Amino acid sequence: MSIIVQKFGGTSVANPERIKAIAEKIAKFSSQGNQIVVVVSAMSGETNKLISLAEEMMSSPEPREMDIIVSTGEQVTSGLTALALINLGIKAKSYAGHQVKILTNKSHTKARIENIDSKIIKKDLKDGFVVVVAGFQGSDIEGNITTLGRGGSDTTAVALAASLKADECQIYTDVDGIYTTDPRVVPEARKLDSITFEEMLEMASLGSKVLQTRAVEFAGKYKVKLRVLSSFEATGDGTIITYEDKKNMENPIISGIAFIKDEAELSVLGVPDMPGIAYQILGPVADAKIDVDMIIQNIGQDGLTDFTFTVHKTDMTKTLDILNKKVKAHVKAREISGNNKIAKLSIVGVGMRSNVGVASKMFRTLAEEGINISTISTSEIKISVILEEKSLNKAVRSLHKAFNLADN
Amino acid sequence: MSIIVQKFGGTSVANPERIKAIAEKIAKFSSQGNQIVVVVSAMSGETNKLISLAEEMMSSPEPREMDIIVSTGEQVTSGLTALALINLGIKAKSYAGHQVKILTNKSHTKARIENIDSKIIKKDLKDGFVVVVAGFQGSDIEGNITTLGRGGSDTTAVALAASLKADECQIYTDVDGIYTTDPRVVPEARKLDSITFEEMLEMASLGSKVLQTRAVEFAGKYKVKLRVLSSFEATGDGTIITYEDKKNMENPIISGIAFIKDEAELSVLGVPDMPGIAYQILGPVADAKIDVDMIIQNIGQDGLTDFTFTVHKTDMTKTLDILNKKVKAHVKAREISGNNKIAKLSIVGVGMRSNVGVASKMFRTLAEEGINISTISTSEIKISVILEEKSLNKAVRSLHKAFNLADN
Repeated sequence: MSIIVQKFGGTSVANPERIKAIAEKIAKFSSQGNQIVVVVSAMSGETNKLISLAEEMMSSPEPREMDIIVSTGEQVTSGLTALALINLGIKAKSYAGHQVKILTNKSHTKARIENIDSKIIKKDLKDGFVVVVAGFQGSDIEGNITTLGRGGSDTTAVALAASLKADECQIYTDVDGIYTTDPRVVPEARKLDSITFEEMLEMASLGSKVLQTRAVEFAGKYKVKLRVLSSFEATGDGTIITYEDKKNMENPIISGIAFIKDEAELSVLGVPDMPGIAYQILGPVADAKIDVDMIIQNIGQDGLTDFTFTVHKTDMTKTLDILNKKVKAHVKAREISGNNKIAKLSIVGVGMRSNVGVASKMFRTLAEEGINISTISTSEIKISVILEEKSLNKAVRSLHKAFNLADN
Repeated sequence: MSIIVQKFGGTSVANPERIKAIAEKIAKFSSQGNQIVVVVSAMSGETNKLISLAEEMMSSPEPREMDIIVSTGEQVTSGLTALALINLGIKAKSYAGHQVKILTNKSHTKARIENIDSKIIKKDLKDGFVVVVAGFQGSDIEGNITTLGRGGSDTTAVALAASLKADECQIYTDVDGIYTTDPRVVPEARKLDSITFEEMLEMASLGSKVLQTRAVEFAGKYKVKLRVLSSFEATGDGTIITYEDKKNMENPIISGIAFIKDEAELSVLGVPDMPGIAYQILGPVADAKIDVDMIIQNIGQDGLTDFTFTVHKTDMTKTLDILNKKVKAHVKAREISGNNKIAKLSIVGVGMRSNVGVASKMFRTLAEEGINISTISTSEIKISVILEEKSLNKAVRSLHKAFNLADN
C-alpha cells in the first residue's frame, strides 16, 4: 500500500464544482488501495479577499493577526474537500495545520516548518481515512497560528510527504507539467517528462510559478519524490522531479528558460570596496523583512565598487527609502538608484556543467537581437541576466530557438 | 481594575466600518483602566455563506467537517477586531476558541463548554492586552474543532466571564435592551432597566432573540452579571439581569410578553395512556437530533391520550416522517398530525408567583379578542399558549395593553 500526498492549488479548488471534481480524482486513487493525504490551498481569490479586509482595518496589518485571518481560507477548503469525499462514500477527515501539529518558527506570515508530529495522520490513514490538511499554515511552540507565505501549501505537502515517508508527492496545478519555458511566450515550448532536482530548484526560484522554491528545497533535503500534474486533465504523467545525476546520460545542454517580471533592481554606487560593506548595505534591508533575490558586486576600481541587488517590485519604494536614509551616508555611497522596468531571465540545465560555450551562445543570441543586459549572475547550472522588461519576450523566444528546446 | 467581557454580535461586526466603530467603543473602555476581553461573532451573513458552501458539497454535511468550516467566520472577525484595535494604538491579540482552551464535549455543531483554561487570557490581560476571542467555538479533548450552535457566541462570552470572574459581561446587540415585548409588534413596548435571571431565562427560551437561552442558564449558574446594550447607540445602560429575588418588592405582575413563530406543533393522537409512552414517542425524535420544545400530554380518557410537542418548523417534515414510520404502529396511535401555521406566545413575570388570576386574565383577554388557543403550558413564572400564527400580533397587542406593560 502506497502513501501518496496530493496537493491542490487555489484554481483547482476555486469553486464547489471544482472541489467535487478533485474529490472524484482523490476517490479514484483511494479506491486503488492507496493511503491518501490531501493538501489544499484556499479557494482562489479568498486569500486576497481576506488580506483586503485586514488592510481595511490598518494599512500594515500586524502579522500575528494577519495569520489568524488568512489561515481560515485553507481551513474552509479542507472542510469542504472532506465533505465532497464523504459525499462520494469515502471516509475523510479535515484538519487545520495546527491540529496535525505542523510546528513552525515564530515568523508570522513567513513561517518555516520546524517539525511535524504526524501521529494523528498515521492513525487516521490506518483507520482508512483520507486525511485532508489545510495548506499554508501551522502553529508556533506557543500555539499561535502561523502561515508559511504565498505558495506555502506546496511546502506543507512536501513536508507532510517527508514526515510520512510518502511514496510520492503530487502537486496538481493548472498546467500539466514543467515546460522548457512559458508556453504563453513561446508556443513551441515543450513539456519535460522529468527534470532534475537542481534544475527544478533553479526554475522555481527563477519564476517558473509551478512550484514554490522552498517546497523544492524541502523535497531535495528529504528526497521526496515530487510530481507536477494537471488538476484539469484526466491523463498524463506530468513532470517528475528526479534526484539522479544525469551527467552520464545523453542530455540536452539546457532544460529550460525561466523568467520573472516582478522584481526591481537597486544599486548602491561608488561605495568603498572593503570588508563588511555587503552586510552594511543589506543588513537594514533584511531588518525590514524585505526579501532580496539576486546580489551582484563587481570587482572595484580605485577602491570603490558598485553593489546591485533585486527585491520584489512592491518593495522598491520602501527599499529605496531605507538605502537613502539608513545606508547611503553610512557607507559613503555616491549614489542610490532603482529601476523597476526590468526582467530577469535565466537559462537552466545540468548539462551546462560539462558543456563550455553555453554562456557565450546565450550572450551572442541576445546581442544579435539587439538586447542589452544590465547584470549577469551565474551558478553551476544556470545563467541569469537582467534586461529591460520590454525586451523579455523577444529574448525568451530567441533563446528557446537557439538552444533547440522545442525539439528534444 | 475591572475585568469586563464585551460580546458583539454579527450585525455589530457586519462590515469593516462597523468593526472600526466597535473598536472605538472597546478602546474607550480600555482607556478607562478596565481589562477587556472581547468576544465576536462572524460578520453577519458569513455563517450562512459557509453553511451554503458546505451544503453544496453534501446535503447533510458531516458535523465534524461543518465545524471546521463555519468556525472560520468568527476567527476572521476576531483577527479583524484585533487589527482595528491595534490601529487605534491599543495592544490587542486575537484567539480562536481552541487556542484559549475552550474545552467542549464532542457534540459537533451543538457542543457544550466543559471547561476553560484561561491562563493565556489572564497573562495577556496582565500584560496590558485587549484579548479578542472568536465566539461560538472550542475544541474537544482530542483537539477537534467544535461549535456551540447558533447564538453560541453569547455562551462563549458568559463562560469566559465566569472563568475570569469578570465584573460584568456586556452583550452588545442591535437593540438597546430587553423590552416588554417586540416593539415591531407593539410600538408602546417599553425597555426594562432590569429583569430577573428567571424572567430573562423564560424570555430567552420563548423567542426573545436578544440572548441565547443557554447563555442565560450559564450566567445563572455562575452568577455572571449580565447586561444587554446597543452596539449602535453611544448612551444608555441597557438592561441588567439581576439575581435578586423581587418577591418583597413592589413589582409589576408580569415583565414581558415573548413569542416565537418558527415552531411547528405535532400530535400523536389516541395512544394508550401507559407508562413509557412519552419516551417511546420522543426517543426516536431525540435519536434524530431534533430539538423538542414544548411537550404537553393531557389526562387520558378511555385509556387513551393525546400527546403534543413542538419542534422547529424546518424539522416538521422529518419529524412527521419519524412519527409515521417508527412511532405510529409501535405505540398503536390512531393518528399523527402536524401544523406549522402556529405561534407560541408566553407571558413572563416573577410577580405571577404571588398573584392569582394572571392566567384567567390572560385567557379572558384572548377570548374577548376571539383568539382560539390550541395548547397551554405553564411554569412558575410564565404561561405559554399555542395559537394560530395569524392571530399572534393581535394577541400580543391586547395582552400588552391588558397588563399595562407600557406604563410601568
